[in-house]
Amino acid sequence: MKENKYDDESFFQKYSQMDRSVKGLEGAGEWHELQKLLPDAAGKRVLDLGCGFGWHCRYLARQGAAEVLGIDLSEKMLERARQLTVSPKVRYQRAAIEDFTGRPGSYDLVVSSLALHYVEDFSRVCEMAARLLTSGGDFVFSVEHPVFTARGDQDWYRDAAGRPLHWPVDRYFAEGRREAVFLGEPMVKYHRTLTTYLSGLLQSGFTLTAVVEPQPDPKLLETVPGMEEELRRPMMLLVSAKKK
Amino acid sequence: MKENKYDDESFFQKYSQMDRSVKGLEGAGEWHELQKLLPDAAGKRVLDLGCGFGWHCRYLARQGAAEVLGIDLSEKMLERARQLTVSPKVRYQRAAIEDFTGRPGSYDLVVSSLALHYVEDFSRVCEMAARLLTSGGDFVFSVEHPVFTARGDQDWYRDAAGRPLHWPVDRYFAEGRREAVFLGEPMVKYHRTLTTYLSGLLQSGFTLTAVVEPQPDPKLLETVPGMEEELRRPMMLLVSAKKK
Repeated sequence: MKENKYDDESFFQKYSQMDRSVKGLEGAGEWHELQKLLPDAAGKRVLDLGCGFGWHCRYLARQGAAEVLGIDLSEKMLERARQLTVSPKVRYQRAAIEDFTGRPGSYDLVVSSLALHYVEDFSRVCEMAARLLTSGGDFVFSVEHPVFTARGDQDWYRDAAGRPLHWPVDRYFAEGRREAVFLGEPMVKYHRTLTTYLSGLLQSGFTLTAVVEPQPDPKLLETVPGMEEELRRPMMLLVSAKKK
Repeated sequence: MKENKYDDESFFQKYSQMDRSVKGLEGAGEWHELQKLLPDAAGKRVLDLGCGFGWHCRYLARQGAAEVLGIDLSEKMLERARQLTVSPKVRYQRAAIEDFTGRPGSYDLVVSSLALHYVEDFSRVCEMAARLLTSGGDFVFSVEHPVFTARGDQDWYRDAAGRPLHWPVDRYFAEGRREAVFLGEPMVKYHRTLTTYLSGLLQSGFTLTAVVEPQPDPKLLETVPGMEEELRRPMMLLVSAKKK
């Protein structure tokens, strides 16, 4: 069963108040790095796996994409995405990432922002992206970093006063389900090693074009309290790969 | 100044007693994975950066390499390497990795085992490997994993009884010098992010062909006490890359 936490009213309300939900891409600490990995979108057919509120879909449409399809499992997320979207080039469809089917070679760019750690089988995602992309097409995604997902509780190891002492890593090679806490709510995520992410892509016929652990945007470091903790451990992994 | 800890008598004696020093490649927990990344050596001109006792040099000569040059900063390591070597195809030369010069395009394979985390400037190593390799040549190396090098003390966070609770990560994005302890001796190593390792290769014109965080050989898991701890966090990173 695929968990659909984003349709839970309590979680949805909390998620809707996050900076990245209110401000969009400019409120996302990794956007300044993810943006650099995106190829020129002009004239491209784009698929967004786990589109959420559709910020990346609309951005790519503004960059000149010919058409953008955003899929997401959550009806609430899609409803908001539709409200925020005016461009006729952007469509949304309700689907679980792992169940999406499409015509082989019908996309030039597949993107995914912080969604693939909710998918159990990453090799299936790689095969799907390879099948859907045309030759020379790009697959660009962000996920939670394996260092961030390994132990499962996704929190600092703290001293008695609650101050972060360090980030604890454990169970790194025990891939699979983790019961994490996100915005105070329990949530299922899947931990994978870096090896599994990168080997999955290579084995599906991709060439790796960038692997980036983003550091916070200097602007956010200055203005967002606690953001300097993000320099102590990697939280996200950004990857771009090209189909041969 | 490049540290030359391996010529320190006390450290050298301890290093000489490690399984990987006594048994060679079969005593190295990552060898079963590194071996898979090595291309067919037949007829190849090989350079080993930080060759130590020369185990990889001799292995590659046995695999049919035309010539193998092993370089190392430590005269003690090279002395032992020469004692262990009979093949006329293998030569050794004392040099710091970052100072080595050679004719452009004069190697088909550059290897390095657990040496590059002693080198401060990784981009310089990438540029050197790219310059020394012929087109289509391979660069295959192992280093200590960024998760292992980040905090610097390279030890578990333990409970009062000394049992490992988890592996502490800190200072991940603060690259540079770390004063680690190895075999009970202080030792300078350099921490780098995964981003820096992989981007360095991509920027020097390499294609990434494999990125592997090795798990211990199942045989060692059964026979070496404490080896199961190696499943709790990644200790090494193996990379193979091809010059375009």
